[in-house]
Amino acid sequence: MTTSSGDIGQRAIDLHRQYQGKLSINARMPLRNADDLSLAYTPGVGHVSMAVANDPSLSYELTGRGRTVAVVSDGSAVLGLGNLGPLGAMPVMEGKCLLFKELGGVDAVPIVLDTQDADEIVMIVKNLAPSFGGINLEDISAPRCFDIEERLQDIGIPVFHDDQHGTAIVTMAAVTNALRVVGKNLGEVKVVFSGAGAAGIACAQMLLKAGASNLILVDSKGSIYDGRPDLNHAKRDIAKVTNREGITGDIHEAIVGADVFIGLSSPGVIDREDVKRMAPDAIVLAMANPTPEIMPDEAKAGGAVVIGTGRSDFPNQVNNVLAFPGVFKGALSVRAPRVTAEMQIAAAIALANLVEVPGVENILPEALDRAVAPVIANAVAEAWRANPAR
Amino acid sequence: MTTSSGDIGQRAIDLHRQYQGKLSINARMPLRNADDLSLAYTPGVGHVSMAVANDPSLSYELTGRGRTVAVVSDGSAVLGLGNLGPLGAMPVMEGKCLLFKELGGVDAVPIVLDTQDADEIVMIVKNLAPSFGGINLEDISAPRCFDIEERLQDIGIPVFHDDQHGTAIVTMAAVTNALRVVGKNLGEVKVVFSGAGAAGIACAQMLLKAGASNLILVDSKGSIYDGRPDLNHAKRDIAKVTNREGITGDIHEAIVGADVFIGLSSPGVIDREDVKRMAPDAIVLAMANPTPEIMPDEAKAGGAVVIGTGRSDFPNQVNNVLAFPGVFKGALSVRAPRVTAEMQIAAAIALANLVEVPGVENILPEALDRAVAPVIANAVAEAWRANPAR
Repeated sequence: MTTSSGDIGQRAIDLHRQYQGKLSINARMPLRNADDLSLAYTPGVGHVSMAVANDPSLSYELTGRGRTVAVVSDGSAVLGLGNLGPLGAMPVMEGKCLLFKELGGVDAVPIVLDTQDADEIVMIVKNLAPSFGGINLEDISAPRCFDIEERLQDIGIPVFHDDQHGTAIVTMAAVTNALRVVGKNLGEVKVVFSGAGAAGIACAQMLLKAGASNLILVDSKGSIYDGRPDLNHAKRDIAKVTNREGITGDIHEAIVGADVFIGLSSPGVIDREDVKRMAPDAIVLAMANPTPEIMPDEAKAGGAVVIGTGRSDFPNQVNNVLAFPGVFKGALSVRAPRVTAEMQIAAAIALANLVEVPGVENILPEALDRAVAPVIANAVAEAWRANPAR
Repeated sequence: MTTSSGDIGQRAIDLHRQYQGKLSINARMPLRNADDLSLAYTPGVGHVSMAVANDPSLSYELTGRGRTVAVVSDGSAVLGLGNLGPLGAMPVMEGKCLLFKELGGVDAVPIVLDTQDADEIVMIVKNLAPSFGGINLEDISAPRCFDIEERLQDIGIPVFHDDQHGTAIVTMAAVTNALRVVGKNLGEVKVVFSGAGAAGIACAQMLLKAGASNLILVDSKGSIYDGRPDLNHAKRDIAKVTNREGITGDIHEAIVGADVFIGLSSPGVIDREDVKRMAPDAIVLAMANPTPEIMPDEAKAGGAVVIGTGRSDFPNQVNNVLAFPGVFKGALSVRAPRVTAEMQIAAAIALANLVEVPGVENILPEALDRAVAPVIANAVAEAWRANPAR
């Protein structure tokens, strides 16, 4: 945390203390008298239970399952702050749930787990599935997150690791519109990533699917290339399809000549001198939170034309909130058992197209634009109907 | 389900379809603009997360943990309907959560599990603990429920199997006031139980603690006596302290001369002839749901003086809803890590005392009496403060 954010920190703590958290659970059904009680609870509810037990699809109609997701974290990678554990993760998960409801109309339950063991997390989430219509995995560190998500793809409800795919969708939309602004094509540009964690790798995968061909991912030890020792399996896989020239060295070397910088790492890893060495009309998306890889004024001083961050106090906020409420709203609406790659690409395209005329300070809708989620939801539902990968 | 409840069944199903379940999750904190977003979510929430990670007790102040419980079931014993599985259990769990909120002001999350393995349930609930201020176990079949609850007593938050202890608290209060009505003393009466599952055994244990000395529990195979073959460990334990005369035979034999009949079993197990063989001024609490062990008019025809059921459409509804909202409200208010026996007895006494002058048709407050939970909560909190068994 920088000293300059001290005020917002105290205000946030005060506000959280005032409200004692951010969510409340309320009755949708009236409970005025004994008749109401006999319908919402015994004996009437027994008939509802038997109906659902006899026809499991009724769980989507007679209980809240079809409009409720869980936001699940083990607290191992909370924002950019590291391994804060489950209690430390809870304020973020509550915030996520608040955004699910306010923007997507999706009821969301925050669940933080007292284990960081992948096998245990998989077993727990699998057994929670009958309670929810979908699972948003959140703030689980790489590379465990890849394995955990992969093993949960067949539990019958969508399991979506937002740090990977939510970030990828929004970054993809941001890159798409930023390239429109500077008049370049994705297939021809050089994209350099600072960060090869959950978000970096998922973003790279999505850009590749969308036609990008020249990507370099850089982690804390330098550029990732095929054959570099000590790569985890996710990095080994991505190394095979990126950095074809086998560039080594650190971010300061990799960034030379890049058209796009995508920062999903940590504060201050590049400065204006790095940006000066990028290609003309450089695009800098510095999304480390709360302090970006480079501050916008510094990136501008280096010559960047389009600059985005993860923050709400600068233009071009690249924030997952633009994706996840709509993605789950759409997936729930068609009862999709998973969120396919096609659904994610449809979400990115729909999000980019929501900006009619992209501009230097206008590559994405505002984070709180309530028109976004319904549009994403429709695109996601349509993509599932077109290709229901059951 | 009896044919006569067909109407209420269809009405309940229609109502559940109309509302798509019974709960909604809502924002407590405003989200009007970028400033709100920066406080409820990034970057402000990062400061809240770090504060909680540094001081775990702040989870009760800065998140919803201190006012939120989970209602957890594996669906193995849903109401009196049997093993309906997790999806079939959900309508009941949602109903329970609705009652938690409406009566106790406690936010409650329904969680149904896709496993009935005791080890897995213990592991899951243990790992869910950082998300909640308490766990209400529900509709988990005996004898697994005893083991599961026992193994979860040291996870740092109260774990309370309502089918055992909630039922015991309310039954204890009902028996207390019914005995006042007929002018008998608990220490001198003969109490016969139909049912030796979770509820029956917990009620028996509580009556024993309160001074009862002459109890007989009867299960589907007959009276339980010390040395009977094929008893599970819970029944073996209770056999050592009940049925001192070693009576054998079925409920029709055990009930002879009984002052109190407590039914926690299945519909229609006794009739008016059985009641005629009870002691004078008989008390019949027939709590099988939705159809009692004996209908009230039949019990009355047999000579019973005080008659209670689990149903809202007859006088003297013996319903757990009179206990659990207040028990958890009280436990949360003092952040008790468990619900001790003293807290349960305090709840039963407080509940009984809420009826100033008990009468034949007035042994308990109305199920929806909103004055009940706060009184129980105070009694439970006070009992913890008086004897904090940390």
